Amino acid sequence: MSKYRVGIVGAGGAVGQEMVRVLEKSFIPVAELRLLATERSAGRRVSFRGREWTIEVTEPERFTGLDFALFSAGGGPSRKLAPEAVKRGVTVIDNSSAWRMDPEVPLVVPEVNGEVLTGKEKLIANPNCSTIQMVMVLKPIHDAARIKRVVVTTFQAVSGSGRKAVLELEDQVRAYVKGREAENKVYPHRIAFNVLPHIDKFDETGYTAEEWKMVRETQKIIGDEKIEITATTVRVPVFRGHSESVNIETEKKILPDEAGKLLARTPGVVLVDDPSHALYPMPITAAGREETFVGRIREDFTLPNGLNLWVVADNLLKGAAGNAVQIAEYLVNHDLL
Amino acid sequence: MSKYRVGIVGAGGAVGQEMVRVLEKSFIPVAELRLLATERSAGRRVSFRGREWTIEVTEPERFTGLDFALFSAGGGPSRKLAPEAVKRGVTVIDNSSAWRMDPEVPLVVPEVNGEVLTGKEKLIANPNCSTIQMVMVLKPIHDAARIKRVVVTTFQAVSGSGRKAVLELEDQVRAYVKGREAENKVYPHRIAFNVLPHIDKFDETGYTAEEWKMVRETQKIIGDEKIEITATTVRVPVFRGHSESVNIETEKKILPDEAGKLLARTPGVVLVDDPSHALYPMPITAAGREETFVGRIREDFTLPNGLNLWVVADNLLKGAAGNAVQIAEYLVNHDLL
Repeated sequence: MSKYRVGIVGAGGAVGQEMVRVLEKSFIPVAELRLLATERSAGRRVSFRGREWTIEVTEPERFTGLDFALFSAGGGPSRKLAPEAVKRGVTVIDNSSAWRMDPEVPLVVPEVNGEVLTGKEKLIANPNCSTIQMVMVLKPIHDAARIKRVVVTTFQAVSGSGRKAVLELEDQVRAYVKGREAENKVYPHRIAFNVLPHIDKFDETGYTAEEWKMVRETQKIIGDEKIEITATTVRVPVFRGHSESVNIETEKKILPDEAGKLLARTPGVVLVDDPSHALYPMPITAAGREETFVGRIREDFTLPNGLNLWVVADNLLKGAAGNAVQIAEYLVNHDLL
Repeated sequence: MSKYRVGIVGAGGAVGQEMVRVLEKSFIPVAELRLLATERSAGRRVSFRGREWTIEVTEPERFTGLDFALFSAGGGPSRKLAPEAVKRGVTVIDNSSAWRMDPEVPLVVPEVNGEVLTGKEKLIANPNCSTIQMVMVLKPIHDAARIKRVVVTTFQAVSGSGRKAVLELEDQVRAYVKGREAENKVYPHRIAFNVLPHIDKFDETGYTAEEWKMVRETQKIIGDEKIEITATTVRVPVFRGHSESVNIETEKKILPDEAGKLLARTPGVVLVDDPSHALYPMPITAAGREETFVGRIREDFTLPNGLNLWVVADNLLKGAAGNAVQIAEYLVNHDLL
């Protein structure tokens, strides 16, 4: 197997750091690791497979010679920099929302729609965190019973908003313990001991961009625009791990037991569904894991063909860095680079 | 107006203490306050309208002479003690789940179905916290547009599990700040920085008792068993204030704007719905308030007639003590005692 020269853009951020860690554990042989970030992180040294690499300032010329690059630099920088990398022959796997809905750009969760990758595309989009874990569970059910409609409510961890948000929750909790009130800068309100039905920007429909991502990205990844989805996305005071309450209406009947068996044998999905022993997916048990966890699978008795499910995944791993590295692994495995 | 002799059973608990505080602010003239609890709380002195009353051990004879009693003693004690009080001519307003589904017992949210009270019933049930705030919002919409189906996911505060659960979350947060792991006794798993899709006991359908309460109590209070409801109830690390993501399908079309206007003029409901200014209901703003807050009212585009709403209320006030005292106020106002 040839060795790859890999770039990580946004290497100073929460997801960027996870990308380094996940890539380290991956089977991909790495000849060179080029860590790129803003000036704030430049100069920092990062160890990777027993060697140290230094974070450099992102400049288009630094893309030259890379085989592929994992981008987690945010939408604005990605819109500018990804084409620069592609121009230099680099395959870009981008974690931002910039390219996801571009009809030319594949939006990929390897277990769900890896087969859309042909090797020709130089820009590949990594889906939104809350979408990835949902499609991991929806796809096998869709294949078995055709999903007509989904009503989803999310419980999203603060690490989804980056490291500053993690520090904000920590600061607020420390302040609470000392009997003080802490500031909020990342979020419009306190997040400690609170929940915020507000992730990303609101539009004129009253929905947030995060809620629309769950609708449109899901349809694109599953490849079926007829699946109807309505979402309510909510931030909760959890550090790591998004949870989702998912209500599904299917065309064909599928019983909870069948759905559980189906999901238990789905690669990348772990069934944790023994509520009588208090076993169900939770953020604290999903954190640090690369799989998607599903449980509390119940018949929805209000519909002829309805199911309720509870889906949890680590938003920085399967929801971001893990899926991005998996896309790279898929490309390597299928000789598409 | 005559003065009332009032009992509070379970006066040592979280809800019992709120009952004292809410009754204090109520217009009900109180001649005597009899505070009853287990031995653990007996002897404790509680101030009420400038006078001190002492908590006594609950004994059936102590009910004699009371006009009405607010019970928050849990299901088991209520099943034994409420009939003892009724036998002695006391009107009981019971906060436990013991009597709620008894066809002889009215289950009351005064703004929604106060008119079921005739003065003949000596035992009146206070609904489950998460049900009360939901029906406050469902009822006016049902009257206007006929609700066919509801999909609800809750975000419930730890105070709903009593004072021990509040202390458990506090202990876990203090331990976290000190870099230690804290114990869990009240909940089967850590609640700090976690979410638990588990409230009350599971049955063979995979639903919890809490989830079935939201179904059956809602149908009973609204007085329409044709309303279909499916619920997922989740504990979150919030001290006070339950939040609910409510998806509604109606028979007649009702636009978000109409629904908002309707709810804004509903007694006991406060509309907080200006997301572009980050205004929506939250636990930290609902805590300490007796109203039910609703916002994020949006059309559900996946249905011809669908709405999404976000509903928050203080689970100890409107969800428990506040509603119980309101029932007493209703009885006093309508001369039903």
